[in-house]
Amino acid sequence: MNFPARPRFSWPSSGPLIIGIGGGSGSGKTTICETIVEEIGAERVGLIQHDAYYLDQSQLPLEERAKVNYDHPDSLETALLVEHLRALLGGHSIDRPTYDFTVHNRAAETVRVAPVPVLIVEGILVLYEPALRELMDLKIYVDTDADLRVVRRLGRDIQERGRSFESVRDQYLDTVRPMHLRFVEPSKRYADIVIPEGYNLNAVATVVSMIREVLRSR
Amino acid sequence: MNFPARPRFSWPSSGPLIIGIGGGSGSGKTTICETIVEEIGAERVGLIQHDAYYLDQSQLPLEERAKVNYDHPDSLETALLVEHLRALLGGHSIDRPTYDFTVHNRAAETVRVAPVPVLIVEGILVLYEPALRELMDLKIYVDTDADLRVVRRLGRDIQERGRSFESVRDQYLDTVRPMHLRFVEPSKRYADIVIPEGYNLNAVATVVSMIREVLRSR
Repeated sequence: MNFPARPRFSWPSSGPLIIGIGGGSGSGKTTICETIVEEIGAERVGLIQHDAYYLDQSQLPLEERAKVNYDHPDSLETALLVEHLRALLGGHSIDRPTYDFTVHNRAAETVRVAPVPVLIVEGILVLYEPALRELMDLKIYVDTDADLRVVRRLGRDIQERGRSFESVRDQYLDTVRPMHLRFVEPSKRYADIVIPEGYNLNAVATVVSMIREVLRSR
Repeated sequence: MNFPARPRFSWPSSGPLIIGIGGGSGSGKTTICETIVEEIGAERVGLIQHDAYYLDQSQLPLEERAKVNYDHPDSLETALLVEHLRALLGGHSIDRPTYDFTVHNRAAETVRVAPVPVLIVEGILVLYEPALRELMDLKIYVDTDADLRVVRRLGRDIQERGRSFESVRDQYLDTVRPMHLRFVEPSKRYADIVIPEGYNLNAVATVVSMIREVLRSR
């Protein structure tokens, strides 16, 4: 066993730089993504969230849709996201789907996304999917401890979404946690960079500076 | 519990940017450091290795020096390294000690190190020491799996240093491993960025691009 030799490295000189940001629910992914977009500017960084690509489930009645395991990879139309990323890499705009979480179904509206120099692909399962990983220039996993993640999720769903403690806890124990252990946590193995403890200022600053340098050198 | 608000971040606009790189023996730290120095240029990046600061042990006979636990923080003169980093931060040159591993003692020679825009402080214990962490602008932990690390260390010590398998294995089990679990592994908690699996091209490229951006914007 030897560590690989040291090739000269370079970032892609044209087309979008694609950064994948994975990690568990409540890990702080969204804050990291939003900070990168704020710092670099929305005209140069596009944020594409995997959960906009939840499957259309119009064929199911509402009560059935409510029971779907939304933490399982099969709940997402990843093939469409891959198709969209390839289109953006080819310089074409895409019409991103939107999802209506209140009725657990894809909404009629789409959002036009134009090609931008940097794309961030965010979601709990983005590092799990090989077809997504292949398109990424940099893979980041946000590795916040499980106790912090669950406390944060409880706070968000109880305070901001008006749900009961029992309902959030049961969902966490029934699907969020088992799917995390089965799919999300193992995908950390594919990360180039792990950010411990969620929103870490120096880690985010490093990625922001890297993006600035890539854009500047083009 | 909430994640902290998002302050605007910035790197120091003058004086050396100090990057700490910790992680276990055999993790690939050295390769990462050397690549950064090669990419940025030795005239702009200085590499300071913690193990150049092993204590002077002239008061001990050779056979006693051979028995010292060199994986314990007490074997290092960290206070002198801190003093040197402060001097470099203040724009002063330092005379870095050198260590003669063949006789387990500090050598008479020193190496003059002039202030440079970027300093890398590397060693298994650099993230363990609070006085070192305080001086770092970015803390990186190289988190290679223990089996890969031990196989790498065996290969290095047997093939390059002519030691026997039994001697390297016994040292690993007697001091390297217990000290890793006691001091090195827990220091990962302080890292801003964790690099899994040693020499990861995209992680190193990210840090190199960040350094370029910091130097360019000064």
